[in-house]
Amino acid sequence: MRVEIWSDIACPWCYIGKARFEKGLAAFPHREQVEVVHRSFELDPTGPKGVTGSVTDMLAKKYGRTHEEARAMEQHVASNAHAEGLEFLAEGRDNGNTFDIHRLLHLAKARGRQNELLDLVYRANFAEERSVFDPEVLAGLAVEAGLDPGEARAVLADESAYTDDVRGDEREAAELGATGVPFFVLDRRYGISGGQPAEVFTRALEQAWQSRTVAPLATIGGAGAGAGVGCDADGVCGV
Amino acid sequence: MRVEIWSDIACPWCYIGKARFEKGLAAFPHREQVEVVHRSFELDPTGPKGVTGSVTDMLAKKYGRTHEEARAMEQHVASNAHAEGLEFLAEGRDNGNTFDIHRLLHLAKARGRQNELLDLVYRANFAEERSVFDPEVLAGLAVEAGLDPGEARAVLADESAYTDDVRGDEREAAELGATGVPFFVLDRRYGISGGQPAEVFTRALEQAWQSRTVAPLATIGGAGAGAGVGCDADGVCGV
Repeated sequence: MRVEIWSDIACPWCYIGKARFEKGLAAFPHREQVEVVHRSFELDPTGPKGVTGSVTDMLAKKYGRTHEEARAMEQHVASNAHAEGLEFLAEGRDNGNTFDIHRLLHLAKARGRQNELLDLVYRANFAEERSVFDPEVLAGLAVEAGLDPGEARAVLADESAYTDDVRGDEREAAELGATGVPFFVLDRRYGISGGQPAEVFTRALEQAWQSRTVAPLATIGGAGAGAGVGCDADGVCGV
Repeated sequence: MRVEIWSDIACPWCYIGKARFEKGLAAFPHREQVEVVHRSFELDPTGPKGVTGSVTDMLAKKYGRTHEEARAMEQHVASNAHAEGLEFLAEGRDNGNTFDIHRLLHLAKARGRQNELLDLVYRANFAEERSVFDPEVLAGLAVEAGLDPGEARAVLADESAYTDDVRGDEREAAELGATGVPFFVLDRRYGISGGQPAEVFTRALEQAWQSRTVAPLATIGGAGAGAGVGCDADGVCGV
């Protein structure tokens, strides 16, 4: 079974939702047969690259609130994170364009290190308030996740690297009807929006598992003169 | 779009079929949006571990042929490989149980090196007739594919490592109706058996692409009081 999770690393509910999903998955009996894939979603794709500001400033401006009210909003998110056992600072992390982070996460995916890097980026952003919009910080996290330093720096420096992968993920999110994140998709059959409680994820996994059917495949190429040659399960190979 | 390819490294038509598929994929306009996953299939799961013999001996015995006839069968396969630009020796490669090779390929998958290792194993087995049933040879190929030497050796030494992944792939092949390999599955909708000509793969990819529909997802968790909290595409996060 395959679970795809669309998220943005600037989204605190994605950080919390990932932890809740993982708790829900840990309680699912067939967890070993679940493959998890993380996909890209930008909350603010129009945000200028290389420009960062504090999240509380952004919240105050966007909602017309005072800085104290903006800090209270962050405190509320922090308390939800703490309830999941996650560290979370509410002092005013950086806010910025996340496109390059998504590109780097795609390199990590190609190298089997996606989950490691995502956890490290979330931790840096929310628990440590290190600026993940700083290429040096990102390169350090990439190495910590097990990526090759030269390769990670090359991807960060080359704006075209993994751009199609990020855009492809975002197009699929739109096709699947996602309007926000986190967005969880089970076997392309069930969709779950938001950082639901862990039990909701466990029940959803059970529902998807029980209703798992293998649709008959349409055969291409077929039998007969033009058919491809292969080896059958007895080890007999056609000639 | 996702293409899954079930194969056994002891299957010459899988080696040839992979090359043909890759040619077909190279001619497909949307090739950048195709993800290829290799899955395990054992042609002879009952073959004893650690026991190897020559393929021509096996063919002669299995089909009641003379050794010259068995060599002619291999020559015929070799000529098909050569026609695809693949090297292929027909002198009598080793034959044996491929389970450990599949386990190692799953480690490579987890590290983003599956395709690299599969190509190296095919090459060693068919083009160089090095015994891929020798753990030392396998460990060397793993390092050449970019895997960590210690990790590769640990997986080869631990018979339980990635066993569930190999068995899971084989169970899925059976559920999907595969009775031999290579077996190609496009988006879990189309099945292609055998090492078909490259043009068949290109046409199949085009057919799968054009008929690609995004099925509406069933929503779990829903809206209302119990709904999960998230951030929407305007960057607004619920509280």
